[in-house]
Order: sequence, then C-alpha cells, then structure tokens
Amino acid sequence: MKLPAAVDVIDAYQRIKALVHQTPVLTSRSINEICGAEIYFKCENLQKVGAFKYRGATNAVLLLDEDIRKNGVATHSSGNHAAALALAAKINGIAAYIVMPENAPEIKKKAVAGYGAQITFCQPTLEARESTLEEVVRKTGATLIHPYNQWEVVCGQGTASLELLQQQRNLDIIMTPVGGGGLLSGTATYVKQQFPDVKIIAGEPAKADDAYQSFKSGVFQPVVNPDTIADGLRTSLGSLTFEIIKDKVDDIITVGEGSIKDAMRMIWERMKIIIEPSSAVPLSVVLENKESFKGKKIGVVLTGGNVDLGKLPF
Amino acid sequence: MKLPAAVDVIDAYQRIKALVHQTPVLTSRSINEICGAEIYFKCENLQKVGAFKYRGATNAVLLLDEDIRKNGVATHSSGNHAAALALAAKINGIAAYIVMPENAPEIKKKAVAGYGAQITFCQPTLEARESTLEEVVRKTGATLIHPYNQWEVVCGQGTASLELLQQQRNLDIIMTPVGGGGLLSGTATYVKQQFPDVKIIAGEPAKADDAYQSFKSGVFQPVVNPDTIADGLRTSLGSLTFEIIKDKVDDIITVGEGSIKDAMRMIWERMKIIIEPSSAVPLSVVLENKESFKGKKIGVVLTGGNVDLGKLPF
Repeated sequence: MKLPAAVDVIDAYQRIKALVHQTPVLTSRSINEICGAEIYFKCENLQKVGAFKYRGATNAVLLLDEDIRKNGVATHSSGNHAAALALAAKINGIAAYIVMPENAPEIKKKAVAGYGAQITFCQPTLEARESTLEEVVRKTGATLIHPYNQWEVVCGQGTASLELLQQQRNLDIIMTPVGGGGLLSGTATYVKQQFPDVKIIAGEPAKADDAYQSFKSGVFQPVVNPDTIADGLRTSLGSLTFEIIKDKVDDIITVGEGSIKDAMRMIWERMKIIIEPSSAVPLSVVLENKESFKGKKIGVVLTGGNVDLGKLPF
Repeated sequence: MKLPAAVDVIDAYQRIKALVHQTPVLTSRSINEICGAEIYFKCENLQKVGAFKYRGATNAVLLLDEDIRKNGVATHSSGNHAAALALAAKINGIAAYIVMPENAPEIKKKAVAGYGAQITFCQPTLEARESTLEEVVRKTGATLIHPYNQWEVVCGQGTASLELLQQQRNLDIIMTPVGGGGLLSGTATYVKQQFPDVKIIAGEPAKADDAYQSFKSGVFQPVVNPDTIADGLRTSLGSLTFEIIKDKVDDIITVGEGSIKDAMRMIWERMKIIIEPSSAVPLSVVLENKESFKGKKIGVVLTGGNVDLGKLPF
C-alpha cells in the first residue's frame, strides 16, 4: 500500500489553498488557566461547510482527470464529508451523489441538499452505506470519494495542521479527534516528517473506541453502530488510515460522554464559537488528564461546527 | 467639549495592543450570496470577555495615574463593560466596583463575579444605576469609568475598526450597532479622518431608537426602559457620543425584533460563531435593505458573544 508523505500534503495545500478558508487559531486565557496548559485551537469549525472535510474533498475533486470528473462524484457520509463533497463538486461544476444514513442530523441533511447534491438515504450501518453507494456508483458512473480511507482525502486533511504550524510554531503536541482517521492520519503524515519533535495524540469517545483498540493491539478492530454524542466519530478506521496511524501516532486516549459535553459547553461559553461534539473530544482528553499535559503547548484541531441548534445537549 | 481625534485612537491602539486579542475577520460565502454584498465580520465576540468593551476599559485603566489607580475603578453596566472593566482591573492589580441592573443576563453576572469584582445590584433604570454608582464611588474613592460616555473609552473602542481596516482594506462601509454610542463614535472618529471615503452606518433596534431619533432631529432624545432582545443596546446616547455621532456618522437605520433574531440565527448557523442579539443588528439592517447595500464591501463589527445558552431565542 502506497502511503502519502509530507510532500503530498504540501502539494495538496498548494492545490487547495485559494479555495479554502485560512481558518484562525484562537486561544482562551480562561481555558488555559483551567487546563494548566497553552492550547491553540485551529478553528476548522469556521472552514467552508463548517468542517475540515472541505480540505480533503476539494483536493480529491481537483485531482480527478477531466473526462472522469464529468460523471460526477459520490460518497457516503454522516454529514460533513457529504456537505464538503457537495460544495466542492458544485464549485467545480460537476454532480455530487450522496448516500446518507437516515439518522444524520437535520442541519447536515439540509446543508447537503442546499449545495445541490442528489441524496440517497440508507440504514445507519456501515454495510448499508457501502452497498447503497455501490449501487449509486454503478448507475451514475460517478467516482467514489471516500470520506477518509483515500489517499487524496488524507493529504487534504493534513493541510489543517500544515497551516496551524505556520500560524503557531513551537507546539509540543497536536491533538485531533479520531473517527475514520482521515484527519489524524493526514496530520501525522505531515507533522511527523516535518516536525518530528511534535507529538500526535488523538482523542476518541470510549463508546466508539475502535481506533483505540486497534492502535493498542496492532490489529484492526471495527466497532458496530456505536452510540456516542460525537456523531462525526461513529465510523471505524479504514485500511489506509489504520496503516498510517499505527505507524505515526503517539497515543490515542478515550473519554466518556459527559466529559465530551462539558468540554463542548466550555468552548461555546468561553470562546464564543460553535463546535459539534466531535470537536470537543481533544479538550475533553486534556481536562481528564491534566497532569500529562501540564505546561505543554498544544495545538487542537476543532473539526466542525455543524449542530442542530434545536437539539443542544445542554 | 474636547472631542477625540483619529490620532487618539491610534495612541490607544499602541497602548492596548499587547493586552487585547487581534480578533479575526471572517466571511461567509452563503451570507454574501443572500445579501448580494461582501461582508467582512470583525469578530469582537471573540475578544477577551467576549466583547469589544475590553478595548475601551483597558485603555481607560492604563491612562489612570498611579495614585488614583490604587483606589480602584467603578462603573454601571448591563454586563459587557462590567466584565471588561473587571478583567482590566484584575490584570492591573486594582479593585473593580460594579453596579449591575438586577435583570442582567446570568452569564454576565457570573463573568463579572468570576473576575473578582465587587458587585452592587440595582433597579434596571438609568436613574437607579447612576445614583447607586455615585454612592459606591463616594464610599470607595474609586474612579468612575463610564461604559461609553468617556473620552478614553471612546478612543479604545475605535481601535476595533483601526484593526479591521488593517486586516481588510477597500471597504465601502463600516457598520456597528448603536446603544450608548461608544463603539459608533470611536469608529467614526478614526475612520472619517483616516478613510474619509468609508461610510459609517449604524443599526439600532426600533424598540430602542433613541440614537435614530436624536440623529435625525439633531436633538438628544433618550429612551426610557426600552424592551429589546438586544440587551446591549438598551442604553441611550451620552453627551460626548451624541456630539461625535451627530457630526461624523452617515446614517442610522432601525430594525425590528424578528429581523434581529433571524440575523442572529443566520450568523450562528452559517458562520459557527456565537453572537449576542446586539451583534446581529447591522446584518439585520443589510437584510432589510438589500438594494441599498448591493455590491458593497461592508465591514461589520460583531460586538459581543455573551448569551445565556439556556435561554436562546430560537
């Protein structure tokens, strides 16, 4: 299996730079005091479509050959990758076919429809998603753009930390949440080669701890229909992302649901930005393990901000 | 009455620069499409204490002589200026005495208490605030720092637009909401002298339209206990701020409560940032008057992000 290198993330950044927001890095004096650390939040919740996923989707669409591109692109996603691919397709004038689980948040369904994508709903299992997608691809001739287990997507997601390290040097640690592992593996690909002293640590909900189990045992162990508030992290690692994560990530730490909600509320209240539960997982890890992170300079990627305002957990 | 000049805002910026956040300027493709204009949002909701008020309070505290400063500072405020002054005082190692109306939002009361200020509650009228404050100042010897009608405060607030115009040149218009007029008069002071081609337009809730009435008639007309969702804009102009606004502001436009709520929700949903209702007033003005703003490059100061998450208007 050909794994991406840091140079591929750098190439991806040159390719997508003009099409993505350079999102701000924000700090909070009060959160730093509470944690006893310096946290630099890379606000990908303020990225286009409200999630880092726009980076990977844009990179993948731009890399398609002209004659393949004209048949459009397709994917399955609980939401953010769907919205990202839909907008990336729209901006490049091609069709997007999206398979979504029927229990995806309303705001994400609305966003995808708003970008003009054609949606097919399915049961909320990985199996149903994949078989429905296969059918869609067969009918339309569209190119599958996987939400995470794809080379171009991994490289695109890695650009968030490339940008972060341009905005804030001298980090000790970079933290991301881990779901399918696209962001985590892209981050590790870039950072471990360019900044080998920076540790890469991922946070994962204990209720969807496939990455943790797989990482610790060295053997891929998917979860089935996990039930966590962090809806973006319900997917399991893929073959490509696991291969990279196994090799390049320093640690994966799990946290409980209550802790995720508390960290989410802390960011809303103290930083005045809207994040979805998945984004709160790394801060939750820091809050639960203060001693390990004491005095460290930590970059945290806030992955997305798509929540139903009518269904807040607080 | 000695009015501040642009150079005083520039001096204030040099003074406070290291102590305030340089807040980001964000844009939203979808809001621009809806408005038919290019809007650059200066995110003072992401300022320390979650509001631009930290700029003016910091400038005022730094300008106090050493021997006066030691007795502390005092003010009345529905919240953001109170939190701002409390933090500015704390950081400079002096006491803050705050008079707050008893109906101020919980989150604002908690924030002020959290910064170690001594709070005295009063009836929610301008008269009660002023008499209570007089009493507090008499007892403590603290220096009054007015929430808006004070030279140093006006100069500090003007620095938000100074920064905005460094981050985004070539604006046609800068818009702010208007309550007591500190931000609006500071903005106009700086911009009209340094960038005379940039128009200054304020938005105001129709239910608290004292600035509109005063501006249109040329005669100061305070409102009494106005009832608008935009809790930061319930105050009336002061003598200093009215003098500046009368002279330097191009227009003041009023909007209804429903329109403010809609604009607030639009910013939450599309931009993933938390703003309080007051911050939504300028966007509400644009949405209600699309023809007048068509094709314009508009800077909008988002003034604050302090809301009770348990009491959202949507």
